[in-house]
Amino acid sequence: MNQFPIPVVRTLEDLRALIQDWRRARCSVGLVPTMGYLHEGHLSLIKRAAADNDRTLVSVFVNPTQFGAGEDLDAYPQDLPRDVALAAEQGAAAVFAPTPEVMYPSGYSTYVTVEGVSAELCGRSRPVHFRGVATVCTKLFLLTGADRAYFGEKDAQQLAVIRRLVQDLAIPVQIIGCPIVREADGLAKSSRNVYLTEAERAKAPILHQALEEAREKILAGERDTATILDFLRTRISAEPLAEIDYIQAVHRDTIVPIDRLEGPVLIALAVRFGKARLIDNFSLEV
Amino acid sequence: MNQFPIPVVRTLEDLRALIQDWRRARCSVGLVPTMGYLHEGHLSLIKRAAADNDRTLVSVFVNPTQFGAGEDLDAYPQDLPRDVALAAEQGAAAVFAPTPEVMYPSGYSTYVTVEGVSAELCGRSRPVHFRGVATVCTKLFLLTGADRAYFGEKDAQQLAVIRRLVQDLAIPVQIIGCPIVREADGLAKSSRNVYLTEAERAKAPILHQALEEAREKILAGERDTATILDFLRTRISAEPLAEIDYIQAVHRDTIVPIDRLEGPVLIALAVRFGKARLIDNFSLEV
Repeated sequence: MNQFPIPVVRTLEDLRALIQDWRRARCSVGLVPTMGYLHEGHLSLIKRAAADNDRTLVSVFVNPTQFGAGEDLDAYPQDLPRDVALAAEQGAAAVFAPTPEVMYPSGYSTYVTVEGVSAELCGRSRPVHFRGVATVCTKLFLLTGADRAYFGEKDAQQLAVIRRLVQDLAIPVQIIGCPIVREADGLAKSSRNVYLTEAERAKAPILHQALEEAREKILAGERDTATILDFLRTRISAEPLAEIDYIQAVHRDTIVPIDRLEGPVLIALAVRFGKARLIDNFSLEV
Repeated sequence: MNQFPIPVVRTLEDLRALIQDWRRARCSVGLVPTMGYLHEGHLSLIKRAAADNDRTLVSVFVNPTQFGAGEDLDAYPQDLPRDVALAAEQGAAAVFAPTPEVMYPSGYSTYVTVEGVSAELCGRSRPVHFRGVATVCTKLFLLTGADRAYFGEKDAQQLAVIRRLVQDLAIPVQIIGCPIVREADGLAKSSRNVYLTEAERAKAPILHQALEEAREKILAGERDTATILDFLRTRISAEPLAEIDYIQAVHRDTIVPIDRLEGPVLIALAVRFGKARLIDNFSLEV
C-alpha cells in the first residue's frame, strides 16, 4: 500500500479492522460509495463527507451486479491510483477497493430488490440495475456501519431507491443527497463522458439546456406533464446525434409517473450519444 | 403494558429506545424471532438465548410476507399474553410484538431474496415464503442490532437461508441453530400441531419414526439417495391420512439435491395431515 497517500483496503477483514480502529477512537464515519474514475461530482461528495464526519471512507468498486448483459461493465474506465490521490486531496481517510470475489465470493446468493421505485426511468431499460445497486449498497452500509452515506442527485432514481431501502430495512445510516456538478457548458459530470467523441461532446450540453428551459416553463406556471415532455422530446430529437432512451416526469420519492406537475417533481432523462448513455434531471417542489 | 410480566414493545421507536438502554448498560443482546403461539421448541431457544446473552428479546410477529395466497395466515394461532408469560419464564427481558403496519408501513417496497438455497424443499410449494422470511429477519436483525439470533433446526431450510443471507450481506449477527424439540411420541413441536384432529395427531409420529429408520439405514452404510427416499415415501404413503408434499435429500448448507449421501446431508420432508402441513428432518455428516 506504500504507493498510496492514504490506506487502501482490499479485503473484508482489513476493512473491519480499519472501521474498528475508527470506532474505538469514537470517530463518526462517512461513506462515499463509487465505481471509481472519480470526477468532480464524486469529489464534491467526498468533500461534504469529510466536513460532516471524523473519518471518510471512499469505496471504489465497479459492481458487476448492476450491469446488464451487453452493458459497459468490461469497458468501464478505471484508474485506482488517481482515484486514491483525488480522494485523499478531498479529505478521505481511506479507500475500500475490493475485487468482485471479495464482495461476491463463491456461493453468494442474496439480493435486495426495491419494488415500485425501481420500475420506471432507468429501471425500464436496465431491469437488473437497481437490484445490483440496492444489494451492493446494503452490503457496504452493513460492512462499514457508516453513520452517513453520500450520493449524487444526478442518479436521482438511485437516490430514491437507496432512501427507500434504508427506511424499509431500518439500516442505521443517514442518506445525504448532493447537487449535480456540471461542466462549464452545463453537461453533467459523469465517468461515462469519456465515451463521447469530440462531436458528441460538443452536442451533449443540449440535455441540460433543454431541462433548464423545461424548468423555466414550469416555474412560469406550466403544470401539464405532456406539454413539458413533448417540449423536451422535440427539443432533444432535433439533435441528430441524440437517441432518446426515456424522458419522464415522476414523483421525486416514489418515482411514480405523474400527469400533473404537482408536489415533489422529478423530470429525468436518459439519452444516448454514440457509445455513451447519459442521464440528467432536475427536481423541484411545485 | 401493566398486564405483562416483562415489557412488550409495539413500535420501532419504543424498540429502539429499549435497545439503546440495553446498549448503554453494555448488555449483549440475543434475539429469538418467532410467530408466537410459543411451544417448547421456542422455549428452548429463549432459554439458550437467555443463557448466552445479558438481555434476550423475543419477537412475536405473524409475518404476512412469508405466507402465500391460500396459506393459513388468517388462521394462524395467536395468544400474546400467554407468549409473554412463557417468554418471561424462560428469561426473556422483553417482547417485541409489532403489527404488520409497523413492520411494513404504507409504501414499503424492499425485499431480500436468497437464491439457490430457497429453491428446493419448501421453496417448491411455497414460492414467496423464504423471501418473506429473509426480509423480516433482515429487518429484525438491523432493528435490534442483536449479537446473536436463535433458530430451530426443525426449519432447516430457513436456518440455511438465514445463515446464507447473514454471510452474504455481512449482517453483524451470529446465527445459532438449536435442536428440534419433540413430543413424547416423537412428533416435532409446532404451532401448527393445533390444526390436527385427534385421529391425525395419533398418526403424525410416523414422520419421525420413518426418518429415524432412514437415519439408521444411512448409519448402517446406505449411501444411495434414491433407496432412502423410496423407503421414506413407501413408509409414509402407507398411512392413509398422510399426503406427501415433498421428501428430499439435499446438502445441509446449500440445499442442493444430492444423488449420493455424502458430506453434510439433510433429509427433509413436508407432509399434510388434513389442514396441517407438517415438516420434519434430520441432518448428519456422512
